Amino acid sequence: MARRAATGARATIVDVARAAGVSRQTVSNALNNPEKLAPGTLERVQREIDRLGFTLNVTAQQLRRRQASAYGFEVNSSGAARMGHVLDEFLVELTAAAPVHDSHLVVFAPEPDDVIGAYRHMLGTGLVDGFILADTRPGDPRPRWLLEHGVPFVAFGRIWDSPELTQWVDVDGRAGVRQAVSHLVDAGYRQIAFLGWPSGSAVGDDRREGWLEGLRAAGLTDTAIVEESVQDLDEATSAADRILDGLSTGGAVVCASDLLALGVMRSARNHGLEPGPDLGVVGFDDTDVAEALQLTSVRQPLQRAAESAWTLLKAVTEEPPGPVLLTPTLTTRSTTTPARLTNGPRTDHTQMEGTP
Amino acid sequence: MARRAATGARATIVDVARAAGVSRQTVSNALNNPEKLAPGTLERVQREIDRLGFTLNVTAQQLRRRQASAYGFEVNSSGAARMGHVLDEFLVELTAAAPVHDSHLVVFAPEPDDVIGAYRHMLGTGLVDGFILADTRPGDPRPRWLLEHGVPFVAFGRIWDSPELTQWVDVDGRAGVRQAVSHLVDAGYRQIAFLGWPSGSAVGDDRREGWLEGLRAAGLTDTAIVEESVQDLDEATSAADRILDGLSTGGAVVCASDLLALGVMRSARNHGLEPGPDLGVVGFDDTDVAEALQLTSVRQPLQRAAESAWTLLKAVTEEPPGPVLLTPTLTTRSTTTPARLTNGPRTDHTQMEGTP
Repeated sequence: MARRAATGARATIVDVARAAGVSRQTVSNALNNPEKLAPGTLERVQREIDRLGFTLNVTAQQLRRRQASAYGFEVNSSGAARMGHVLDEFLVELTAAAPVHDSHLVVFAPEPDDVIGAYRHMLGTGLVDGFILADTRPGDPRPRWLLEHGVPFVAFGRIWDSPELTQWVDVDGRAGVRQAVSHLVDAGYRQIAFLGWPSGSAVGDDRREGWLEGLRAAGLTDTAIVEESVQDLDEATSAADRILDGLSTGGAVVCASDLLALGVMRSARNHGLEPGPDLGVVGFDDTDVAEALQLTSVRQPLQRAAESAWTLLKAVTEEPPGPVLLTPTLTTRSTTTPARLTNGPRTDHTQMEGTP
Repeated sequence: MARRAATGARATIVDVARAAGVSRQTVSNALNNPEKLAPGTLERVQREIDRLGFTLNVTAQQLRRRQASAYGFEVNSSGAARMGHVLDEFLVELTAAAPVHDSHLVVFAPEPDDVIGAYRHMLGTGLVDGFILADTRPGDPRPRWLLEHGVPFVAFGRIWDSPELTQWVDVDGRAGVRQAVSHLVDAGYRQIAFLGWPSGSAVGDDRREGWLEGLRAAGLTDTAIVEESVQDLDEATSAADRILDGLSTGGAVVCASDLLALGVMRSARNHGLEPGPDLGVVGFDDTDVAEALQLTSVRQPLQRAAESAWTLLKAVTEEPPGPVLLTPTLTTRSTTTPARLTNGPRTDHTQMEGTP
């Protein structure tokens, strides 16, 4: 416990540096990046740290914390938008992958009218070293603010306003929807409509573009029907009603979300149509709801997205790392199984086996 | 920046205490609980803190952190058990309520074979001051370990093994299921079966007890049918098949979870029965899946549970606080609307309006 402990004053990094005959930066490296030091130097610094009781002083907690960084992650407390918990699942994947990157995750829920204030407050607590953003969108004030304040961050979702920023990982929704259209065409559905969100949501526009590309590839653009709805079940059902009024037999609807697809399934029942045999339906995100409804849905590779987010965030490079664009997969279920086309007309309920 | 800064050694709490002529505890109080000090004392200590540059030293971060405590919350990374995200919703409510309690939440995902090791590691990082437990169960090693190590914690869920511990908030599942039975009886369903989890899960046993109490209250115990299934859709569907083979017309099934209820709905379709008109079905947790399937379900008051958890955790009392037992509510939907009983026989699909 050394000299200085006896006088009541604690050894500082300056004391250690002087005693070991090295710079303060070298002491800091010995604590935080020991691999950067020559073995002899590291040993000498560590000996002085031990001798002076440096690791036993009040900064011990802080030193421990340095070994495991912590990052803030915003969760959405707005109940209305919560059906389809894809970001809950992303949070779990981030949490599970954190130890591999010597990191921890601190969650926080900003008030909707002061999101930046919540980020500022989190930084002020000293708890976090940076942030992992999700749900990025055009006009998002967060990337710019973090950049201006020199705060490390990575985004799950493109940084739409700043194409020069590359520290993001995203899932190629356009490719996912294109794949859905191709699957429907292969299954024998002929007229393929799209139910999306109102224009202007970059994510939704990208998914609609994938639908159009899929139609073009299949030569089916001449009978394209598109409707839009906000992320609300009643409105989605009404929008689906309008689609089904114009859709011919053996048609299908690709949707920008599982919630919109649920609206299509409700509308289908109202029209006396059985999803799958009478009408193809595809959702997006492969949520619990998709599984429960036997809904074919585009699945985001969230585990890989979380892994990429940590890798980008912790990358030690001269060049800004990224971007990473991952390809989703399609989980196929009974809503894209055209039983009528292959098994003849449906006659009773038994063909609904396996569906809720 | 004072004397000591010039010598390269930082002022410590001992220096401040000596200079102000007070104890170290008083200096600590001046920093963390200023309301505990007489104004004159507080002023004297603050003057010495300023003069000695105490707040400018490396513990500034640590001092900031003291103003906002942080607690660990374990998230479950096992994908199989994730349908029904009730704990995701609880996490969001905890996060939203944290600022009111000057606290933050740090999430972590233990390896299933070393849960205690993950708690020990979290403590070792210095990031957290304690824990909020969820998903408590008989044989749970966590409460005992935390108690033995003097770590503050609160549990969402009873501390089943240690009735003397009261720092928990839970939802009265038994009361919720009793309420579900009563609702079914009022709606006109006559034979009411239960699909639960295998005996030994305290939560499941409690819910089954509620069903029995409900039957007794209605004088319907003579035709009680009970089956069990683990939290797996195929197994739940098989168990439901066995129930429906023995259930008379106008019967109903109360389930220990929404997933089990989904199994009942699938089995119902296989039996040519329409949930609601032909068969009452009630789930538990009112998840997204319940909403999507128009399933009546018992809803836990998660916002109040989160609020209570923080209050118990931050309570400054001599006596251990708690426990808090909250009463759930029932969200009624079309699976407990006996249209056939009130509107005569169902003749076509149009009566399925509003259901997926």
